[in-house]
Amino acid sequence: MVDHVLSAEQDRAEALVTEKVLASFDDAPDPRLREVILSLVRHLHAFARDVRLTEEEWDAAIAFLTRVGHITDDRRQEFILLSDVLGLSMLTVGINQPLQGTATEATVFGPFFVDDAPLVPLGGNIASGAPGEPCWVEGTVTDLEGEAIPGARIEVWEADEDGFYDVQYDDDRTAGRAHLFSDESGTYRFWGVTPTPYPIPHDGPVGDLLKATGRSPWRASHLHFMVTAPGYRRLVTHIFVEGDPQLADDSVFGVKESLVKTFRRHPAGETAPDGRTPDIAWTHVRFDIVLPPAP
Amino acid sequence: MVDHVLSAEQDRAEALVTEKVLASFDDAPDPRLREVILSLVRHLHAFARDVRLTEEEWDAAIAFLTRVGHITDDRRQEFILLSDVLGLSMLTVGINQPLQGTATEATVFGPFFVDDAPLVPLGGNIASGAPGEPCWVEGTVTDLEGEAIPGARIEVWEADEDGFYDVQYDDDRTAGRAHLFSDESGTYRFWGVTPTPYPIPHDGPVGDLLKATGRSPWRASHLHFMVTAPGYRRLVTHIFVEGDPQLADDSVFGVKESLVKTFRRHPAGETAPDGRTPDIAWTHVRFDIVLPPAP
Repeated sequence: MVDHVLSAEQDRAEALVTEKVLASFDDAPDPRLREVILSLVRHLHAFARDVRLTEEEWDAAIAFLTRVGHITDDRRQEFILLSDVLGLSMLTVGINQPLQGTATEATVFGPFFVDDAPLVPLGGNIASGAPGEPCWVEGTVTDLEGEAIPGARIEVWEADEDGFYDVQYDDDRTAGRAHLFSDESGTYRFWGVTPTPYPIPHDGPVGDLLKATGRSPWRASHLHFMVTAPGYRRLVTHIFVEGDPQLADDSVFGVKESLVKTFRRHPAGETAPDGRTPDIAWTHVRFDIVLPPAP
Repeated sequence: MVDHVLSAEQDRAEALVTEKVLASFDDAPDPRLREVILSLVRHLHAFARDVRLTEEEWDAAIAFLTRVGHITDDRRQEFILLSDVLGLSMLTVGINQPLQGTATEATVFGPFFVDDAPLVPLGGNIASGAPGEPCWVEGTVTDLEGEAIPGARIEVWEADEDGFYDVQYDDDRTAGRAHLFSDESGTYRFWGVTPTPYPIPHDGPVGDLLKATGRSPWRASHLHFMVTAPGYRRLVTHIFVEGDPQLADDSVFGVKESLVKTFRRHPAGETAPDGRTPDIAWTHVRFDIVLPPAP
């Protein structure tokens, strides 16, 4: 913060603006909405006063948000990217999916989830043509006591080896995403592709912000999971690839140590756990998921 | 604020997210941009933690901002409206145009200014067909010592009697806006229309926010001024109409007592200061403008 000396009169005039705005919400019928907006106004105003926001900066902020709005469409959500790179998404995840014993940690949802991804059977392939090195993923879904959770719905989605999700392709193909269900013993398994690092879309205003502030748009390699089961807290998370140099500099702050997994590499011709023998190199990762009870 | 009891571990985990985000800007090359963004991150994160922002609320915020972005175009600036109704615009004005002796107070710029409004001669009519009761406006432009400022550029713009600015018309007409210059003795005068109250555009997301929080979209009647002269601080302000019931409940918090002026009403047939005799009732207001030196 810069040290600004304000006259008492000026300080009072500025505080009065905030008081007037807060008072304007006195009749808000929804107490929660009122609580949220009063806090937002207090913090926004404190921000503007702390930095002595100039009118040129305010203009720039309006122009920036306008660009964010205009680049956002059904396939690109720049406001989520903005929230992601400011760490607000990760903080919101942390607030809502607090640490709870051995429960698997959560991380950011990201802008690339799609409802109604296809169902694949256990052991099926979610890649559906997405290019990349084959990756065998397996694990269990259990509760905090280690009891199996059968029938948990597991949504998985990932970028291909070029760093693109299917929604970023030029056509309407579905690839690199699916859902499956844990079996009676709470286990699951599927083929996907080995995650590789990719930059978040950085040809828009959020990319410009990262560039202007000396930050990298790269994300650590990851595979997305969303796991739901009746009676349990929904888990939104990723697994990350051990050894990925991007782990220490993830543009959306999603990395948690407990989510970094070993992806073992196997040469072409080695037989996979499902009895197949890929004719190219493949990887193998284990991810055991622990769900806490619903809040 | 709600009283939330967090475990020390959870509190630390949340604080760590903020620390990581702040550290990501360590290499930002522009120190001012870095200062602004660090403060923004601190306040945004403090807001989310204070209210324990839920994921549903975060979703709603993303959807709200997306709507604000999509309704914004060359003729409608919903982000400015949002800043206005949250009092951020008025606070920014107050920070940048602080109280200074007898200098005329500033108020919000609003979203309806247009560059290159036509020049009118002193005593000319800025209405250009905008419907409304004629209003004679006159005054002086002086410095803090009361010395005339000749050649000050005075931009004026206003809504018509139906509450619409020309940019809200269906055609590309220019009406209710112009610029003129103070004369050798620092005086100015023009015909416009008597301001009437109008609601800010409230058929979009900002209107929905006002409705959901029990607030009115109405603005107190006003006439916009922007006054510039070499060597003086730019003044962006309005004058308001004494007696307007909306003065106490202006949706953008623009009203300052020093800007409330008496608009004297005159019956049809009474001769105006410029020697004309309108055949309908008209009003007359005086607004003496005092500019402080450029900062």
